[in-house]
Amino acid sequence: MKLRFYNAKILTMENENIIEGELHTENDKITFVGENAPEGKFDREIDLGGNLIIPGFKDAHTHTAMTFLRSFADDLPLNDWLYNQVFPHEAKLTEEAVYAFTQLGNMEYLTSGITSSFDMYMKLPAYVKACTDMGYRSVLCGSINDFGGTVEGIEDEFNEYNSGNPLISYQLGFHAEYTTKREILEGIAALSQKYKAPVYTHNSETKAEVEGCKERYGITPTQLFDKLGMLEYGGGGFHCVWFDERDMEIFRDKNLWMVTNPASNLKLASGVAPICKMRAAGMKNFAIGTDGAASNNSLDMFKEMFLVAGLQKVKEEDAAACPAFEVLEMATKGGALAMGLTDCDVLAAGKKADLAVIDLKQPNMQPLHNIAKNLVYAGGKQNVKMTVIDGKILYEDGKFTTVDADEIYERVNKLTKQICGD
Amino acid sequence: MKLRFYNAKILTMENENIIEGELHTENDKITFVGENAPEGKFDREIDLGGNLIIPGFKDAHTHTAMTFLRSFADDLPLNDWLYNQVFPHEAKLTEEAVYAFTQLGNMEYLTSGITSSFDMYMKLPAYVKACTDMGYRSVLCGSINDFGGTVEGIEDEFNEYNSGNPLISYQLGFHAEYTTKREILEGIAALSQKYKAPVYTHNSETKAEVEGCKERYGITPTQLFDKLGMLEYGGGGFHCVWFDERDMEIFRDKNLWMVTNPASNLKLASGVAPICKMRAAGMKNFAIGTDGAASNNSLDMFKEMFLVAGLQKVKEEDAAACPAFEVLEMATKGGALAMGLTDCDVLAAGKKADLAVIDLKQPNMQPLHNIAKNLVYAGGKQNVKMTVIDGKILYEDGKFTTVDADEIYERVNKLTKQICGD
Repeated sequence: MKLRFYNAKILTMENENIIEGELHTENDKITFVGENAPEGKFDREIDLGGNLIIPGFKDAHTHTAMTFLRSFADDLPLNDWLYNQVFPHEAKLTEEAVYAFTQLGNMEYLTSGITSSFDMYMKLPAYVKACTDMGYRSVLCGSINDFGGTVEGIEDEFNEYNSGNPLISYQLGFHAEYTTKREILEGIAALSQKYKAPVYTHNSETKAEVEGCKERYGITPTQLFDKLGMLEYGGGGFHCVWFDERDMEIFRDKNLWMVTNPASNLKLASGVAPICKMRAAGMKNFAIGTDGAASNNSLDMFKEMFLVAGLQKVKEEDAAACPAFEVLEMATKGGALAMGLTDCDVLAAGKKADLAVIDLKQPNMQPLHNIAKNLVYAGGKQNVKMTVIDGKILYEDGKFTTVDADEIYERVNKLTKQICGD
Repeated sequence: MKLRFYNAKILTMENENIIEGELHTENDKITFVGENAPEGKFDREIDLGGNLIIPGFKDAHTHTAMTFLRSFADDLPLNDWLYNQVFPHEAKLTEEAVYAFTQLGNMEYLTSGITSSFDMYMKLPAYVKACTDMGYRSVLCGSINDFGGTVEGIEDEFNEYNSGNPLISYQLGFHAEYTTKREILEGIAALSQKYKAPVYTHNSETKAEVEGCKERYGITPTQLFDKLGMLEYGGGGFHCVWFDERDMEIFRDKNLWMVTNPASNLKLASGVAPICKMRAAGMKNFAIGTDGAASNNSLDMFKEMFLVAGLQKVKEEDAAACPAFEVLEMATKGGALAMGLTDCDVLAAGKKADLAVIDLKQPNMQPLHNIAKNLVYAGGKQNVKMTVIDGKILYEDGKFTTVDADEIYERVNKLTKQICGD
């Protein structure tokens, strides 16, 4: 399949420039980006009429199948929500349900121009099948904790899901310090050493989590992971709201990825991550995640981008803090590199054809003073005209090309009723 | 014109119930809402296929024509932004420009299901013409300050724009304490007494504003307005971020409207309004505004609703704070009553036909556990299928029925270039 996008504006994210030109793809790859395009034969030629191509957004932390708990148990204190509402209903999940709830979540990513997500959840075969059946790219994250999984199981998953499926890869991970005993943490550290592989986990999401870790170990989660030898080959933390200076130094020195989830952190009252302070401390690697739909409640990178910038400005009491292009980098290039998708970071010949077409001909994108700022401060799902993954158009003008949306809505509601009983 | 919406879910906002039934309109009014609909002849019958009707959102504080400065001068300290970027370019505005920039802003409201806005700006004849030409409902707010306007001029506007145009009304107002000398404030207070009319203004948006007022008068802006006799007939404040206990008591005792603008308050680093504390202090009247596109940068009630709830939760360190339905009330009924639009608050026979149709058949609205929570926590402009004002469909499936969108984008960009030179 060869595609030609012409009459386009292109923000490659290699720098802040906007190219007026063409982008060509062949199968899963970009073959050309620039002004003076070569001639060629294409399966489809798409006149963008001045609209914009950007690299697809990367959702660097999520639990996709949790769509089934969207708006099910909100406005509750965190512990009540997690222990009385989330865990008991997750226990009833079947493979069939995870498949359908993943389809729904992946559809929502497509509507937001998100082309891959870093997913931590359960029932991986059903999840992987849902992604590959519809052509969605995902990086799985190990989720072992005291309630499920073994270190051997994580090693098996690591090998199985890094064995060549072009849409699927896997990173070592565990749920969090507060849910995972030391023996398992040491096992994951050993795996990291054996495979020279990075490790990812929920880290310092709440103040109580950090205080609990200090009671158990006398140090913060980040300092514990460092001490256990888990961070020698990179990796990162999800949330990272309650970091102290030493935590920031470790993240800086080990080049770890800080993945922020601002909508979830607001909605669950966890706090506002100190991203500007982290940058000032020398940390350079930042990405953005939506977290799951049970805590967010939408899977939307535009919402997250506005929140990243806006919350830093108000936290720093400085309207100049956290400028828009920095945030756009986090949402695209940053996410890709955080997840190990080094071929999906920017738009350039040889890179994977994972991209979104943004409709600039809507009131919220006008006038065209600064397209990057328009995206971060005013953009929304209504601006996503098309989402392309691995060279295939999966979403165009509100339609999904590889799934039957109405059939999925019906199935999701039926399965949700069986599980939640409402 | 008689419209029949059938096969609909209807959230009237009279209470939390969702009706499955029909809504009928005749000319500017709703004639029926409920289950067992009467037969009748209609000009158009619209099968909603299970989609949702809600009262249109009310944008209770904005500066619509500021769309021309969207993404023009962001990521700057507040004073630099206001005095070096906003004011000098506003000085170049013509009537033609205000007309076009208002059209663009009103189009964006329609894409967000907003059916009226409480607008404070300049060149009112051009603004009013832009609204009435396209059928958009607006309440104008007086904007006098030391740099423009006279008390006599405000009185003339009050009489002129409250003289029967069904789409236009006017409330007494002034820009803010920090831009308006005491003599003018006293003049507005006298007008309020003369017409028994409420008064609205920017109030306690920034900490510096409150500190400045205390230096000038020894008391806060709210206490000053009270002392000057401006608050005897109601009214309200825009922003209200930095309120003390006495300010809250005055707002409670005088039944004044607190209009929050969370996106603007984040982006300009102004702070987070203490809405939960205000409720605890007995204040009952809350509404939501977008502020202008130069400071937000979008005109989107979904974004504001998520922010109202999320920011209160994190401020109160309580995920149960500021539940979704309370926020939905602020965005619909609250806004209408704040602006004096007592016929536009809920969906009921005899009320104005100002409503939005929400597309529930999109991934972010599924499953259907709780539609109100879906709207507040997961909704977005992509869910707005139709916006109706005064019984007329102004926006449907991405198309505007009373303006030529492409022609407006072209004109807006041309005029913006003339004014901003970029």
